[in-house]
Amino acid sequence: MSHHDIALIGFGGVNRALAEIIHSRGERLAADIGCTLRVVAITDLRFGSLMQSGGIDLAAVLSMTGDQSFAGMPGGDSEPKNEHVIRHTTADIVVEATFTNPIDGEPAVSHVRAALESGKSVTTTNKGPVALAGRELSALAEAHRVRFEYEGSVMSGTPVLRLAAETLKGLQISSIQGILNGTSNFVLGRMEAGASLDAAVAEAQALGYAEADPTADVEGSDVQLKVVILANEILGAGITTADVSRTGISGITEHDVAAAAADGERWKLVGSIARDESGSVTASVQPLALGAEHPLAGISGATNAVAFTTDLLGTVTISGPGAGRMETAYALLSDIIAIDAHQTALAGVAR
Amino acid sequence: MSHHDIALIGFGGVNRALAEIIHSRGERLAADIGCTLRVVAITDLRFGSLMQSGGIDLAAVLSMTGDQSFAGMPGGDSEPKNEHVIRHTTADIVVEATFTNPIDGEPAVSHVRAALESGKSVTTTNKGPVALAGRELSALAEAHRVRFEYEGSVMSGTPVLRLAAETLKGLQISSIQGILNGTSNFVLGRMEAGASLDAAVAEAQALGYAEADPTADVEGSDVQLKVVILANEILGAGITTADVSRTGISGITEHDVAAAAADGERWKLVGSIARDESGSVTASVQPLALGAEHPLAGISGATNAVAFTTDLLGTVTISGPGAGRMETAYALLSDIIAIDAHQTALAGVAR
Repeated sequence: MSHHDIALIGFGGVNRALAEIIHSRGERLAADIGCTLRVVAITDLRFGSLMQSGGIDLAAVLSMTGDQSFAGMPGGDSEPKNEHVIRHTTADIVVEATFTNPIDGEPAVSHVRAALESGKSVTTTNKGPVALAGRELSALAEAHRVRFEYEGSVMSGTPVLRLAAETLKGLQISSIQGILNGTSNFVLGRMEAGASLDAAVAEAQALGYAEADPTADVEGSDVQLKVVILANEILGAGITTADVSRTGISGITEHDVAAAAADGERWKLVGSIARDESGSVTASVQPLALGAEHPLAGISGATNAVAFTTDLLGTVTISGPGAGRMETAYALLSDIIAIDAHQTALAGVAR
Repeated sequence: MSHHDIALIGFGGVNRALAEIIHSRGERLAADIGCTLRVVAITDLRFGSLMQSGGIDLAAVLSMTGDQSFAGMPGGDSEPKNEHVIRHTTADIVVEATFTNPIDGEPAVSHVRAALESGKSVTTTNKGPVALAGRELSALAEAHRVRFEYEGSVMSGTPVLRLAAETLKGLQISSIQGILNGTSNFVLGRMEAGASLDAAVAEAQALGYAEADPTADVEGSDVQLKVVILANEILGAGITTADVSRTGISGITEHDVAAAAADGERWKLVGSIARDESGSVTASVQPLALGAEHPLAGISGATNAVAFTTDLLGTVTISGPGAGRMETAYALLSDIIAIDAHQTALAGVAR
């Protein structure tokens, strides 16, 4: 059985959830995934930095409160020295879960770059590094013979990139349509039940789906980044956000929703990518009124979904959660499993 | 790049479709799937048997008409000597696509057994060998260090077994619900549009969805076999059809359908499998009236779907075609890709 030492960059909800999974499942997890995992480094804005090459006591750090710090612990520091830890940790896998701004993807891009440059594989669920610097970072990973994995950047733990690349291998995918933002889908559902756009957004905020500033959800820029990732990863499009036309749902009225319902249709905010016969790819984000037979029409609440149109198999659709703490931690775990499988295969070839 | 020689047992719609894919795609297919494929044996009730270790001219055999025979061709015979060909072909992969009776799975079970015993990997989309003799045949494959793959036995080319085993690795699946028979789902949809059960079944037959005898579709025995496969493969249940309670849709009336619609619900024929905390598994096939929020409620027409309830990720649902000539041939191709990946990994370890 193989083994991986893990560095957690950022110790907010998602990386805490991953630490909980590793801590609470122990041997059962190893049996399930075929490798053992140990956390040897953590950085966090509140707690600082901690490097312990023999393994960090996860029960202890998971019980820390906001007024505590890693300072004074062996290998501890009161500062979150992200890049220092990334470069000097004994971990072979870096889990990047800090934050990312939608303009340049920082600081996540720099964290990923530092990890790959120092010969560590990386998993992240941050859209920024993938959508904005994916090509550079993937090339860097290849040059250093490590992996850069980011399954969770599109639909959290619901598999979509690996589904397309592995489970649907051998199919030609000609187009992709997705409901890629749970907040806007929830809002449109509440409008079907009679709520106004503003009331539905307020409800999504109260339930924790929407951010304090719901613009990225409602105006489609969150979906736009995910469309870039899907187009580049699955269709090899090489596009940027500037290539994705974007219309959000703020122009959809209660009247529009009611009129669609009368025709048996449902408004959905759909990210679409299509490759034509010449190979050129067009991509968009826009509200569409979908008939009941459309594979995305039945996707309700905060659920996300992606429908692939293929040559041999027609349309295949996967749906599931697109957010959530444990759900996103599972995306990281699935990336770690993929990194392990790849390294095990490489070791076999090298032997 | 690796290479596989293929024997096609049965040359009806599905294996012909696989031959068409291999013939028409050639180098593009090899680039897509990472291995080259060559057909070296074919058996068929009409044409007889053909073994040519240097590779069969697929264009020639695909253009044969029903009054022609393999007799007189080099390596040809007028009789479909299935077991002889399976045991003596130079192929390393046998594609079993004859037929299977739902009582003992023959002759498909014998074909699979003969192939595995003679050291060949097998792919089949026949439910019979998997549902009725899966444990024996999987053990036989392991003993002979070959693979027995059957992704298409549940939902044709729509991936479900490999999705659960690989793409969802690391998750604990506690329950599975599926719409696993396109004919009955189509029939229920037509009943929602006002048709009677009998008229809807006749329409399904006219469209080629339903068999001349639609009993297995309508009364749930087709779904029952698929439930056995899902329960044993994914939850390790070790059950037989006798353990799966079964109620078909023949008791559902137009009134039932209309009453459900008035409540915002849709009748679906659902195969269900659940594992309780003690580990024991219960399984059933029965019509259920599903509310609009249920992940299977929006599955329309002849589409199939499976919803997995998991510990970390909540419910993940995959939907797509559950039948069709090319769709089922893709299931065989996806099994060949999996066999290749496994053998490549083994070769790496042995090196």
